[in-house]
Amino acid sequence: MKKVCALAIFLLAGLFRPAYFGTKGYLFIIGGGDRPESMMRRFVDLAGGFGRGKIIIFPMASSEPVETGARLVAEFKGLGAQQVESHILTRDQALAEESVRLLDDCGGVFFSGGVQSVQMDVLRDTPLHRALLELYQKGGVMAGTSAGAAVMSEIMITGEERRKVEEGHEFETLKAANVVTVKGLGFIKTAIIDQHFATRKRHNRLISLVAENPRLLGIGIDEETAIIVGPDEKFEVVGNRNVVVYDGSHASTVITPEKAISFRGMIMHVLLDGDRFDLKKRKVLR
Amino acid sequence: MKKVCALAIFLLAGLFRPAYFGTKGYLFIIGGGDRPESMMRRFVDLAGGFGRGKIIIFPMASSEPVETGARLVAEFKGLGAQQVESHILTRDQALAEESVRLLDDCGGVFFSGGVQSVQMDVLRDTPLHRALLELYQKGGVMAGTSAGAAVMSEIMITGEERRKVEEGHEFETLKAANVVTVKGLGFIKTAIIDQHFATRKRHNRLISLVAENPRLLGIGIDEETAIIVGPDEKFEVVGNRNVVVYDGSHASTVITPEKAISFRGMIMHVLLDGDRFDLKKRKVLR
Repeated sequence: MKKVCALAIFLLAGLFRPAYFGTKGYLFIIGGGDRPESMMRRFVDLAGGFGRGKIIIFPMASSEPVETGARLVAEFKGLGAQQVESHILTRDQALAEESVRLLDDCGGVFFSGGVQSVQMDVLRDTPLHRALLELYQKGGVMAGTSAGAAVMSEIMITGEERRKVEEGHEFETLKAANVVTVKGLGFIKTAIIDQHFATRKRHNRLISLVAENPRLLGIGIDEETAIIVGPDEKFEVVGNRNVVVYDGSHASTVITPEKAISFRGMIMHVLLDGDRFDLKKRKVLR
Repeated sequence: MKKVCALAIFLLAGLFRPAYFGTKGYLFIIGGGDRPESMMRRFVDLAGGFGRGKIIIFPMASSEPVETGARLVAEFKGLGAQQVESHILTRDQALAEESVRLLDDCGGVFFSGGVQSVQMDVLRDTPLHRALLELYQKGGVMAGTSAGAAVMSEIMITGEERRKVEEGHEFETLKAANVVTVKGLGFIKTAIIDQHFATRKRHNRLISLVAENPRLLGIGIDEETAIIVGPDEKFEVVGNRNVVVYDGSHASTVITPEKAISFRGMIMHVLLDGDRFDLKKRKVLR
């Protein structure tokens, strides 16, 4: 009887497990800006520790992908990485089955800054995208900065808004149905990632998205700062500035017919280098 | 014995009562921008209901105080106010004992927008300042928009920061010991007021101040929106947009030697027209 019960629980747990359950990989999500050497060394060491440790850079988000790729190759080699390659792919290339061979021997993948929609227009739902998800499942390190941070979550902020606004007046409102999102790479399904957070004052847009998706955390990573998400679904903050976490899961949230939003009892954390957060329990650790 | 006990409790309560205890007046604090007619009618009606209902405007914060005063006189008269006067005072005039006579017959006072430090340089610690506090105690309505909202709190945000920054890069950081504050009029001692809040994306500066003053609420009022604080220390939100309340009283707050800040468990509310908040209990009502 006990055995039957245990089996039933095991099967039920399987039904309800999130897609990333059992992931062995790491996410290294950087909020843009300068990259402190000590922070990037953590990435290079982590990527070097899986498989044969090769690092692949995808700089397609950048308006100067050749230069951006070359700079990142030099940066990671300077920090001791043995094998680093930058690959600028077209959508056709990402759609070809053989693209997945790029990830052979790969310990880590780095997505550059730039315009995240451009990166996703190449990668979304391609064989390479599926291979990236698999590599992460198996233990690979998925890293990115700025636009490369935005692509990490299932719900990706594009940077556009539906309201028509003059330049310099972006996201000046707390409103639902305004912030444009599309499907990102989807390494993280429990949170929406925003970047350059305090520096570019992006609170309004992340708060607005958490109102629309109260079961997701809003994670705003500032420049010169990163979160390292481990296989245990806990993250550590590294770097010089803050990570803001919005947790609306216990708040009473209203979206009016006019798309105005109200929250009662949203929880907000402001975290610093060394702080750790449990994404499952939604709790700051220590 | 019962009588002695009651007396002791009464005296003890007196010792610990906050300065505004027993205030009969109202605060009408507007976040700047356009002023919806229905919102301003509430102010005119409220001011008309105390004493002889005269409204006095102090437009000294404005760079064009004559024009600003005249516009406000016209606005309030257009909404049915019987007696409205604008007075542009110098510090010497505010220092003269007879300045307090300006408040005879006064039901409400309105502080204009502009630069709050200019207004406070005239009024701070003058006989007129004391008379304003008394008028509020007795039942008068203290109102203001933008700079006129900033002056309401004991701790007033000047708009300056200690960090040297280029124009357009103000308050891009969550840091302690950066946001410059001075003593405001002090009608409200339990909160720090910020204005043009979501529109000018002022989250960083208010969050930073709440880290430094965890026992004070941070209240960020957006444009076209006001809070009406009653004698019961509850406020109601009126207008078109949001009021954000930060409550760090139950958070674990750290300020590092480098003035970086961290919060665990800050509470944030986003309120809309009609929402009510209890400043004493720090709770959204209903």
